[in-house]
Amino acid sequence: MGTKESDGVDPRVLRTRRDVVDAATELFVTEGWSVVTHAEVARRAGYSKATVYAHWPTRLDLMRASIGKICDEADHPEPTGDLRADLVRGLVDFAEDLAGGHLDRVLGGLLERSGSDPVVDELRRRLYEAGTRSLEGVLRSHLPEVDVEPSLALLVGGVLTRGAFQGRPATEEFVADLVDRVLASTGRGEEG
Amino acid sequence: MGTKESDGVDPRVLRTRRDVVDAATELFVTEGWSVVTHAEVARRAGYSKATVYAHWPTRLDLMRASIGKICDEADHPEPTGDLRADLVRGLVDFAEDLAGGHLDRVLGGLLERSGSDPVVDELRRRLYEAGTRSLEGVLRSHLPEVDVEPSLALLVGGVLTRGAFQGRPATEEFVADLVDRVLASTGRGEEG
Repeated sequence: MGTKESDGVDPRVLRTRRDVVDAATELFVTEGWSVVTHAEVARRAGYSKATVYAHWPTRLDLMRASIGKICDEADHPEPTGDLRADLVRGLVDFAEDLAGGHLDRVLGGLLERSGSDPVVDELRRRLYEAGTRSLEGVLRSHLPEVDVEPSLALLVGGVLTRGAFQGRPATEEFVADLVDRVLASTGRGEEG
Repeated sequence: MGTKESDGVDPRVLRTRRDVVDAATELFVTEGWSVVTHAEVARRAGYSKATVYAHWPTRLDLMRASIGKICDEADHPEPTGDLRADLVRGLVDFAEDLAGGHLDRVLGGLLERSGSDPVVDELRRRLYEAGTRSLEGVLRSHLPEVDVEPSLALLVGGVLTRGAFQGRPATEEFVADLVDRVLASTGRGEEG
């Protein structure tokens, strides 16, 4: 990812960009959107504020770069071909990212600012798509004849609601039960 | 609601509290958590900053009061006794609050700050419970023998994910389809 952007760019500029985006992403993920200021990112990355402003004139530019990095690094295991097992594994990963990887903070930051700026809405959609691409692919490959978006909304939403709003862990047992329910609703409950 | 708090309190103090909480809630809902400062709330409510600080020493106190107001005013229609129709109506209301009532901003603000402070986690749980109490009651009354939390997570999460992350409207048709899928998974799909 990012190959096109880096073609012909001074390696020092690339390093600066990488350091600053790393610092902004770390700040966003651990402390939340409102903490990501040019001053704080510059301080943490070890560059001047002027340098940060030169590359990313607005806070939204910093957020776009951070979310790009989060999307590029989204880790998707290879599907095994077992529909139920692949869905359970993907959703357990998602639940762990919510609980321990601070994904709740990232999604919350985007949700809080949604509707206020089309760029934010675009970032939110991009993050959702990057995060769910693998699950969507698994569903589509096994259920080519159906619209998988409702199933995806139920699965992703069920895990999100459990972990983020019911305040209870989305354990593997809970996730497997959700998957069985959703597969049953698509007529695939007996498989796997 | 709030009757106990108001017993024996000077009516002018009650009016001040109400004005300030109204202003804080309006700001929270329309512009997000990070915009709710003592200075801005005071300006909008027409009181001094000192007055606002005297009643709500921290921003979290202002947020707690706003979320209390949002919970108290959560509007839950009387169930009709038709399981499917009551769930669809409740969830369409929720989808409308997400899309037009800025509930996405409120939930996002809580999610962004979750894990950072037990008070925030408690507010998040309180808001979720107030928002889903009616749906939970409908499920429990028709399905007394089952744990309704997974069904509730699927329904609420499915609508949230559709509206807030898939960036597509959770129409009544979409909601009805989710309800049918979830009821099918509890063995109640043929009813209603």
